Amino acid sequence: MESAIAEHLKCPRTRHRRVEDDYTPPYPVWSARAAAGVGQVVMGYFGVQSRGPELQGRACAALMQIARDFGLADGPGHHDLAHFVDAEGFDNMIAIAYWSDPAAFGRWCATPEIDDWWRSPARLDDGLGYFREIASPRAEHYETMFSTPDRFEGVGVVMGGGVSGEIQEHGYWGSMRDRIPLSQTDAMVASGSRSAIPATPAPGQRVRIAGHQNVAMIRSGQEWTDTTGKERTLYLEDMEPTLREGMDFLRDQGLAIGCYSNRYMHHLDARGAPLQKSFGLSFWRSLADMERWAESHPTHVAIFGSFMRYVQELNFELQLRVYHEVSVLKMDEQSYEYINCHPRTGLMNGLAA
Amino acid sequence: MESAIAEHLKCPRTRHRRVEDDYTPPYPVWSARAAAGVGQVVMGYFGVQSRGPELQGRACAALMQIARDFGLADGPGHHDLAHFVDAEGFDNMIAIAYWSDPAAFGRWCATPEIDDWWRSPARLDDGLGYFREIASPRAEHYETMFSTPDRFEGVGVVMGGGVSGEIQEHGYWGSMRDRIPLSQTDAMVASGSRSAIPATPAPGQRVRIAGHQNVAMIRSGQEWTDTTGKERTLYLEDMEPTLREGMDFLRDQGLAIGCYSNRYMHHLDARGAPLQKSFGLSFWRSLADMERWAESHPTHVAIFGSFMRYVQELNFELQLRVYHEVSVLKMDEQSYEYINCHPRTGLMNGLAA
Repeated sequence: MESAIAEHLKCPRTRHRRVEDDYTPPYPVWSARAAAGVGQVVMGYFGVQSRGPELQGRACAALMQIARDFGLADGPGHHDLAHFVDAEGFDNMIAIAYWSDPAAFGRWCATPEIDDWWRSPARLDDGLGYFREIASPRAEHYETMFSTPDRFEGVGVVMGGGVSGEIQEHGYWGSMRDRIPLSQTDAMVASGSRSAIPATPAPGQRVRIAGHQNVAMIRSGQEWTDTTGKERTLYLEDMEPTLREGMDFLRDQGLAIGCYSNRYMHHLDARGAPLQKSFGLSFWRSLADMERWAESHPTHVAIFGSFMRYVQELNFELQLRVYHEVSVLKMDEQSYEYINCHPRTGLMNGLAA
Repeated sequence: MESAIAEHLKCPRTRHRRVEDDYTPPYPVWSARAAAGVGQVVMGYFGVQSRGPELQGRACAALMQIARDFGLADGPGHHDLAHFVDAEGFDNMIAIAYWSDPAAFGRWCATPEIDDWWRSPARLDDGLGYFREIASPRAEHYETMFSTPDRFEGVGVVMGGGVSGEIQEHGYWGSMRDRIPLSQTDAMVASGSRSAIPATPAPGQRVRIAGHQNVAMIRSGQEWTDTTGKERTLYLEDMEPTLREGMDFLRDQGLAIGCYSNRYMHHLDARGAPLQKSFGLSFWRSLADMERWAESHPTHVAIFGSFMRYVQELNFELQLRVYHEVSVLKMDEQSYEYINCHPRTGLMNGLAA
């Protein structure tokens, strides 16, 4: 057993963990480790927004173009494709890409064919919406967790340092915070507020959102490909509907409790067909707001209760794979841009008049 | 809103709370305050143990005698009577008494008629078991919580300092710890282990148990006297059975997770008739063990989920009264004595051969 905080990220503490040194978690969980020299990563959400079936083909083509452009020099080390329908009824397809080097990401973005396409006035006129939500947390500012040590998702794929041993900081409320290296010395309190340029987002515009200090972001996923029989039934008929309810709550009513945006997304394969994988992606005013929802809101208490029933029914022998990655972002680790998107999209949510 | 930690018990922190300074709990809760000069209290559990209906009359008479003796000089400021059937099928009736002054408790215990009765060899021969479990936490070592500010239970009745304003530290996991003044500077880690004199408890003996550093103790109660209609049905048919299951688990299988003893007790009136009030009383190796059970064990997750449904169904308008008192006890704040009790009684549980 080892700490979720990698050796080279440990520092003299001014803040304590929530558990004692002899704490033993009830089941095993692993973290991804970073290779030497991987100090900051980039998590890029490249979205295409459309409404109605007649635009879906063009939206899909735009997504595929983005994914093809990942193949250019300095492209990401890993990407996923995913889809969801938002609260306004828009289709949102997102290519989620990970870089282990922000400089490479910078060069990729500056590639003329990428940059010209993004900056072209035509982006406001082709009937689709586009967005880029870029989080680039330093190693101290994020953590990962995987229910199996054999395969990573998300940022874990590009970190390059292999898998940890079984980690100690999980299975209790507050463990998410305790896994983030910065928690050794910092309460990660949010300050400031989002601002939009222009100040009042509206459709048909380019909008930049400036984040504030310590915005929290979580991608929390599951894959049920390998489940069979009773486990599959339990997932599809008990756990998934409960999860969906919680995701819908955050999407529709999250703002009041500090959740700026929530997307419950399904993975697509390279041809746009759905996979048996999904994840929730949400942005929060603060890690504390996320903690409070997770610990005490009825919708997440229900998710937690449902997961507890699930693992017990299956006697902890799961084929379901679960993982998450959580970041607490400084001002300079966030960049959000929207082109011709409706004003409740992503980080714009709640800022329109 | 104010801190659960009374002003005069605040000190420069070396340890942080789990929530930020601007945290607002989702519903109000109150603490009892101590009057000036109340620095240490005594919580005494005076038990009578018997088996089978033929001994119940004598056991009841013994309990009533104990309660009458509370009326002698230096007796407690408040007491309750309660009953439960333990895992071995024994009836246990307990008079629970609170003193706001340990010196007064000492004098009361030393009163010849009390002391002579307790020390008499006849106590081993009259067919009943007796015990005294005495916790005497200093003000820094315990906390109280009440769902209404109008009436106290337990130690709150004798503390003499009235009721706090609405307190901040509740409604999140870890708030129990944050309410205990000692948590400002101390992790309250358990050390050492219980020991018995004689070393192997058996029936027909006088047994003393020495506690260890930082044993945690909770009395957590509810009164449904004033509930009616839908609320009463919800309590009796959903919440109470779930609570009972959790209590049974701790009673029967608690040792493996650090729970030395659990009693789910019903209040009796002065004539021995049941009231519509109950409480769980448990002793734990550490506060951390209690926290882990509460946060993640299926039996308590179910209790928590059931309570969440309850308050939501009733839109937070409850007639149910709930409260608790939690102490973390130093060696010198614990005294446990058993006369002719079966070897799984109270703190003896798990120490017999």
